[in-house]
Amino acid sequence: MKSRPSPSSKSSPFAEVDLERLERCGNSEVIFGAGKTPEQILSISLQLKASGQSVLITRTDATVFQLLQSSLPGSRFDPSARCITWHPKKLKIKNKPLQLCVCAAGTSDLPVAEEAALCSEFWGNKVTRIYDVGVAGLHRLLRRVPELRQADAIIAVAGMEGTLPSVIGGLVACPVIGVPTSVGYGANLQGVTALLGMLTSCASGLTVVNIDNGFGAAAAIERMKKRTQPKHPRS
Amino acid sequence: MKSRPSPSSKSSPFAEVDLERLERCGNSEVIFGAGKTPEQILSISLQLKASGQSVLITRTDATVFQLLQSSLPGSRFDPSARCITWHPKKLKIKNKPLQLCVCAAGTSDLPVAEEAALCSEFWGNKVTRIYDVGVAGLHRLLRRVPELRQADAIIAVAGMEGTLPSVIGGLVACPVIGVPTSVGYGANLQGVTALLGMLTSCASGLTVVNIDNGFGAAAAIERMKKRTQPKHPRS
Amino acid sequence: MKSRPSPSSKSSPFAEVDLERLERCGNSEVIFGAGKTPEQILSISLQLKASGQSVLITRTDATVFQLLQSSLPGSRFDPSARCITWHPKKLKIKNKPLQLCVCAAGTSDLPVAEEAALCSEFWGNKVTRIYDVGVAGLHRLLRRVPELRQADAIIAVAGMEGTLPSVIGGLVACPVIGVPTSVGYGANLQGVTALLGMLTSCASGLTVVNIDNGFGAAAAIERMKKRTQPKHPRS
Amino acid sequence: MKSRPSPSSKSSPFAEVDLERLERCGNSEVIFGAGKTPEQILSISLQLKASGQSVLITRTDATVFQLLQSSLPGSRFDPSARCITWHPKKLKIKNKPLQLCVCAAGTSDLPVAEEAALCSEFWGNKVTRIYDVGVAGLHRLLRRVPELRQADAIIAVAGMEGTLPSVIGGLVACPVIGVPTSVGYGANLQGVTALLGMLTSCASGLTVVNIDNGFGAAAAIERMKKRTQPKHPRS
Amino acid sequence: MKSRPSPSSKSSPFAEVDLERLERCGNSEVIFGAGKTPEQILSISLQLKASGQSVLITRTDATVFQLLQSSLPGSRFDPSARCITWHPKKLKIKNKPLQLCVCAAGTSDLPVAEEAALCSEFWGNKVTRIYDVGVAGLHRLLRRVPELRQADAIIAVAGMEGTLPSVIGGLVACPVIGVPTSVGYGANLQGVTALLGMLTSCASGLTVVNIDNGFGAAAAIERMKKRTQPKHPRS
Amino acid sequence: MKSRPSPSSKSSPFAEVDLERLERCGNSEVIFGAGKTPEQILSISLQLKASGQSVLITRTDATVFQLLQSSLPGSRFDPSARCITWHPKKLKIKNKPLQLCVCAAGTSDLPVAEEAALCSEFWGNKVTRIYDVGVAGLHRLLRRVPELRQADAIIAVAGMEGTLPSVIGGLVACPVIGVPTSVGYGANLQGVTALLGMLTSCASGLTVVNIDNGFGAAAAIERMKKRTQPKHPRS
Amino acid sequence: MKSRPSPSSKSSPFAEVDLERLERCGNSEVIFGAGKTPEQILSISLQLKASGQSVLITRTDATVFQLLQSSLPGSRFDPSARCITWHPKKLKIKNKPLQLCVCAAGTSDLPVAEEAALCSEFWGNKVTRIYDVGVAGLHRLLRRVPELRQADAIIAVAGMEGTLPSVIGGLVACPVIGVPTSVGYGANLQGVTALLGMLTSCASGLTVVNIDNGFGAAAAIERMKKRTQPKHPRS
Amino acid sequence: MKSRPSPSSKSSPFAEVDLERLERCGNSEVIFGAGKTPEQILSISLQLKASGQSVLITRTDATVFQLLQSSLPGSRFDPSARCITWHPKKLKIKNKPLQLCVCAAGTSDLPVAEEAALCSEFWGNKVTRIYDVGVAGLHRLLRRVPELRQADAIIAVAGMEGTLPSVIGGLVACPVIGVPTSVGYGANLQGVTALLGMLTSCASGLTVVNIDNGFGAAAAIERMKKRTQPKHPRS
Repeated sequence: MKSRPSPSSKSSPFAEVDLERLERCGNSEVIFGAGKTPEQILSISLQLKASGQSVLITRTDATVFQLLQSSLPGSRFDPSARCITWHPKKLKIKNKPLQLCVCAAGTSDLPVAEEAALCSEFWGNKVTRIYDVGVAGLHRLLRRVPELRQADAIIAVAGMEGTLPSVIGGLVACPVIGVPTSVGYGANLQGVTALLGMLTSCASGLTVVNIDNGFGAAAAIERMKKRTQPKHPRS
Repeated sequence: MKSRPSPSSKSSPFAEVDLERLERCGNSEVIFGAGKTPEQILSISLQLKASGQSVLITRTDATVFQLLQSSLPGSRFDPSARCITWHPKKLKIKNKPLQLCVCAAGTSDLPVAEEAALCSEFWGNKVTRIYDVGVAGLHRLLRRVPELRQADAIIAVAGMEGTLPSVIGGLVACPVIGVPTSVGYGANLQGVTALLGMLTSCASGLTVVNIDNGFGAAAAIERMKKRTQPKHPRS
Repeated sequence: MKSRPSPSSKSSPFAEVDLERLERCGNSEVIFGAGKTPEQILSISLQLKASGQSVLITRTDATVFQLLQSSLPGSRFDPSARCITWHPKKLKIKNKPLQLCVCAAGTSDLPVAEEAALCSEFWGNKVTRIYDVGVAGLHRLLRRVPELRQADAIIAVAGMEGTLPSVIGGLVACPVIGVPTSVGYGANLQGVTALLGMLTSCASGLTVVNIDNGFGAAAAIERMKKRTQPKHPRS
Repeated sequence: MKSRPSPSSKSSPFAEVDLERLERCGNSEVIFGAGKTPEQILSISLQLKASGQSVLITRTDATVFQLLQSSLPGSRFDPSARCITWHPKKLKIKNKPLQLCVCAAGTSDLPVAEEAALCSEFWGNKVTRIYDVGVAGLHRLLRRVPELRQADAIIAVAGMEGTLPSVIGGLVACPVIGVPTSVGYGANLQGVTALLGMLTSCASGLTVVNIDNGFGAAAAIERMKKRTQPKHPRS
Repeated sequence: MKSRPSPSSKSSPFAEVDLERLERCGNSEVIFGAGKTPEQILSISLQLKASGQSVLITRTDATVFQLLQSSLPGSRFDPSARCITWHPKKLKIKNKPLQLCVCAAGTSDLPVAEEAALCSEFWGNKVTRIYDVGVAGLHRLLRRVPELRQADAIIAVAGMEGTLPSVIGGLVACPVIGVPTSVGYGANLQGVTALLGMLTSCASGLTVVNIDNGFGAAAAIERMKKRTQPKHPRS
Repeated sequence: MKSRPSPSSKSSPFAEVDLERLERCGNSEVIFGAGKTPEQILSISLQLKASGQSVLITRTDATVFQLLQSSLPGSRFDPSARCITWHPKKLKIKNKPLQLCVCAAGTSDLPVAEEAALCSEFWGNKVTRIYDVGVAGLHRLLRRVPELRQADAIIAVAGMEGTLPSVIGGLVACPVIGVPTSVGYGANLQGVTALLGMLTSCASGLTVVNIDNGFGAAAAIERMKKRTQPKHPRS
Repeated sequence: MKSRPSPSSKSSPFAEVDLERLERCGNSEVIFGAGKTPEQILSISLQLKASGQSVLITRTDATVFQLLQSSLPGSRFDPSARCITWHPKKLKIKNKPLQLCVCAAGTSDLPVAEEAALCSEFWGNKVTRIYDVGVAGLHRLLRRVPELRQADAIIAVAGMEGTLPSVIGGLVACPVIGVPTSVGYGANLQGVTALLGMLTSCASGLTVVNIDNGFGAAAAIERMKKRTQPKHPRS
Repeated sequence: MKSRPSPSSKSSPFAEVDLERLERCGNSEVIFGAGKTPEQILSISLQLKASGQSVLITRTDATVFQLLQSSLPGSRFDPSARCITWHPKKLKIKNKPLQLCVCAAGTSDLPVAEEAALCSEFWGNKVTRIYDVGVAGLHRLLRRVPELRQADAIIAVAGMEGTLPSVIGGLVACPVIGVPTSVGYGANLQGVTALLGMLTSCASGLTVVNIDNGFGAAAAIERMKKRTQPKHPRS
């Protein structure tokens, strides 16, 4: 099997890094850390760095960070969000930043909420965190409605029965993305109940991402930013 | 197989009517109409009537009502709640009636809510109906909080993601019983999603009955009335 | 239970029409026809009309349309999308319309796709329909990439294994909303397989709505339009 | 994000403690220990203490207890129920205590049963424990019927097929709350079978809480106590 | 494809009737009527008759009976059990008959219970029917314990939560076979809940057959009769 | 809560040992070791011993055995079956022993098969073990048919798709009890697939017990032995 | 949306017929009839005919056949397989035909088996039908082993527990494709049990297609025929 | 139980090694390592070696390899594929080798893909590995189409939503076998979503094996090789 050179991807035995994604999809490839060895993560990070792109690693830990630190000087590890971020010195954010709210129903939902918030900040947006506003104490959420109504988009993170996005969806006009979490026990079914609940919400126009997928919600909002950009003329 | 006479039950080939239930459990046996022939329902009704008890038939229809009307003069059929009710002339309600609220999230939940309301009224309680107060328009529910706070107990009926009991549970101190309905489609899974959502609610102290089981919620509240009665001394 | 007058909602025995929703959430209340009687639908429609709002009824049929026609002159019924639409004469769309693509994997997915397309058009957007582009014949989709890249947002409708949004998501930068359909049999599990597949897509930033919920996808995109509007200053 | 002062809640970066809950819902906020760090638990406990409220922590362990002991002098840790309790010196229970029975089908169900019993005692009730009375040896339960009939309410805890609440429900007139447990294997499906079984019970008027949720059952009964209290006049 | 003659089976285009089964498995092949055309059922019946065997058809109806009556003179159709039975004139039952009890929890379980009872009688056993003895009124079952203890084996039929076999299993020493039924709604999941409940029963030594499979329970007991027969010496 | 003396059970704080079971159900109570502390197991064992009964502990391990050895001299621990057995010196088996076959499809099914075999031997039966006869090499099973046809009853243990009982059921006339095991991966769903497969077997008269429940199958056969005993005359 | 001409596909408002598929994938596009209107089916059929290709319509009925007959002279409708077939006069089968066996466990599986057989014959193969050979009467299958061993590939169709492919897979060396059917009830779960059982088969090298997908199995075997063809040199 | 000598199998207490399988099914028995002790694996390996057959152990680890190395000189352990392989010195591959492609969607799918590749190579085939070609970056896969079209058969390994086989199936004419993996989280449901997705694929003629079953896919292709061999004349 001889080599297939390509200007737009770097091939290693285990990964075809998609260096064109920045242009094609509007943001660079992100490294999903779970299930990859530290060495694989380092290798992919260096390919991204070499092509002048920023590095974002999700679902990672301090061990990986220790390995990467010297190769990615200035990188940061956030243990709550379980993410490593690194930017090249000359980074220019092309899109206008958004004003986002990341809401979380309970304290146990914070790791997922922080993943969403940190990824959004990585892409240059401003994030207001509104935490512990589960509907069992509705007044806590209602106090924050003015902030919610200032947002360009809202990420609503909730486990258990996953009610939060429904209630928020009825209070604001902007996009609301529900992130179910696996927080809960028994009938929560590792987050499936929250997921199904958000999908059947009576508040119209909510959309949902996978369980615990804070990154996915942030990425979905990043796509919204794209639509005011000049269109890509070629296939 | 020879006859086993019993002072407290009437035996037919297909049913052992539990005539003692009024004393043992505090209210008489109720006839679940689904899956029974009109003739079976009539036969059981007559046994209840003969022992001086009231008759409540759930999940029934106009055909059954036509058959029963002459035997149970003064009986009523409620097509929305799908119930037939009949009381003997000399009925004395021993327990003090309760003030209840039956809430429903949407218009499609009404048959289940009406079953709960009608059964509660059958047992002598006062019922305030608060309908179409789903959380997508939270202001509709919040307007009704004073009424909710006057109630002795609340039945909260909701399909789709089943959020209503969670929100009500955070607003009042009295018992709240959630009734999931099979209203919805797709990820609603015929009410399973609403059921699981209510069970994992972040509002503490909610309890839940089976999907579409308006009768069950009313019966659960009827049990609460019992606890202020003199205790049964014998096994 | 005495009357609770409210300037912003009309109360009927079965429904609290949310007339404020236009201002609060950016578009008026939509009538979900399934599970409502024609008379209930007519009553709600007249309340919306009386308050100067447009009327959109989903999951409805020709019988309802016949009842409504005289009361809503100029209304239209689309049997494929199963929707009735009516606009008041002096309608002004405040938001700038979007250029959308609605894609469908197979012929059987058309009712859901048409619901999405028609709702989007009801709210003033321009819709390009790209149908029968399932991934079993990938060239059919690849031919349409230029059109896809011109869109502000894309609704991707697919049953069976629900692959279409994943593939589209890797080809464009704009928001992509997946709508799983209940088309298929056996292991499709009435659309659950397509739903779960879209949620676990390897293409980042996809979001998903409930099975067969074409309306929901259109409503989600409508929320995106809102974020460039002046913010609501009050709670 | 500047501070939003509120007389009724204390805001920390991770939690909005709901100090008003005592008045609004009749009992103070309870700390669900699972998924919170010892430091978070300590912080919330101190806020409750500072506002003159009792402290109840569920799903916790000896490590947390060691951290809290000095700050909450006189607190107790029950390893079987996995709960920590603390009361201020001048505690006045406003409601009349109830006489409860907590029943458990098997030895393995004890942790859940003890959580229910201990929480009920924390709120001032008297609890009779009736354990190892599974229906495989029905005589063990039947011997206890007189005690069951003296109770104001009964919590019935059972794993495996979850039969116990059904049988008890047919023997008594008071409220019976079923708590399914995750005890069992194979077809028990981590408690889902017991949960579904209780929900479809042929004994009318049972209600059910989440799997292993002993606390929830106790809280549900606490709500019953409320209904004889003076009503809250304000929203 | 040429013919494959066999002394022990009759081949038709759609069925290989297993005429040897009487000797190999102790009872003749039974015709499961569901999903077969009346003509197919007639054809198989005639093959069984021609080989001197009895005919038992389950899950059938009056239409099939009308077609068969002239070919199987003296056959009977039981509409409750949905079975047709026919015996040759010279039938000798080789095994000693058993004394069985067929118990049913509720009136709606009767079709399944009757299928079990009728099949058992078809094979020459004596059956005591004990119906409507669900555990919500435990006294109804307890009255029948003497009869239960006289039985050689018991078939316990129950829908909803399927408790009946558990309770009976704790009261008797003989074999108890649970038959879950699809009677119920919502969380019953078409009988799956009753099935799972019986499988996780706390009463030891219960065995279970498929949902609504009254025939299967009868056939299982028929196998028990076999073990006192002379053994088959050849393969 | 004062003591409730009973001639037929010993009450400890955590367990009501059912000493009457030997007479009522034909064999003594068996200790399910999983989820019990060694001390609890010892305590129950001593109660059984004190009443002159044999001791059988399932799902246990060497640690428990070490604790019990001195109190139950002569007891044995079988690590494969994970059972401890002990008999009093003067044991008289009242029932005539049966000749059983325990079959297992694969090597990984042995722990479950051995639990079934050892329990059957504990109750005095003779057991022929027929292992590794999965249907992928059908000749292995067919060679053993003569032995299978000599058995009074057969326990067929299988994981993966659980085919073995179906095939055996078509080859013999005696009772066949299927025991699904959790052996397998992926679509096996921890034994649920094998369980459902056995329940829908095309071989009539099979019965099934819970996943991995070798004890349950042995107990079910023990019940068959009972039916030739004198009947219990009292309730 | 203006026209996008393409030499290799015909575009209609509802379908992009994939006329290139014959060359790319080795056989022409097949029309899945379910969910399409007769008019849509006719339109697609005419496009295939116009391009010189054969027509195969699955999941169809006599109504469609009546509409098509005049346009496709010589076409045939098989009501058992629910398929319509038509070949152009000058059809040359390029690939060497295979000798296949289609096996079915029971009479109720025939529609699915016939769909597989008829599709295979449509593509020019020879098919031996081996029906009603379920494992409950193993001798019926064992008699046919010589035929099975002559086959190039085997399609094994079975509902209920789906054992047939496992047993066949252990008897032959050629490819075996399992087709689970939705035949059965209760724990069969509309074919899901048979599907899962085949996937976890202990016979190695089986592959599986969707429930009731006889066409899919035939298509899978058609792919095998391709591998001896000259390779396609272009992308 | 006396010995049953057989020329074609070696019996040990725990396993009946199927030495005839090489002739009957075309390849020797493979040892599934999971759930077997190292000693059991060694014993079976020696029996295979003694009969002149190759040894392939899947789902194994370095510990087993250390035990076997001296007994199987020249054996190899591949930690990525988790397989041990050994061939006798005089090995003659009778079948003509195939040219295969093993494709994997993501880096985390490699263990399963490597198991498939290594097993295929063990049986003498040539394997091209095409990894990290998930559909989120479709260009990576499209670049490899020429290689895919040269293959005799393709194994497509994918987790998450399992799209890869669908897309490949639409691009090539040869057999495509989908292997779902348990890679993913949340709605992936441990690979069930990928499994169901592949089964409902819109690309016709795909077949599927169990989750993570790389070996099974390789074995299925091995069966295809058989069909050009001389037929086995005897049963």
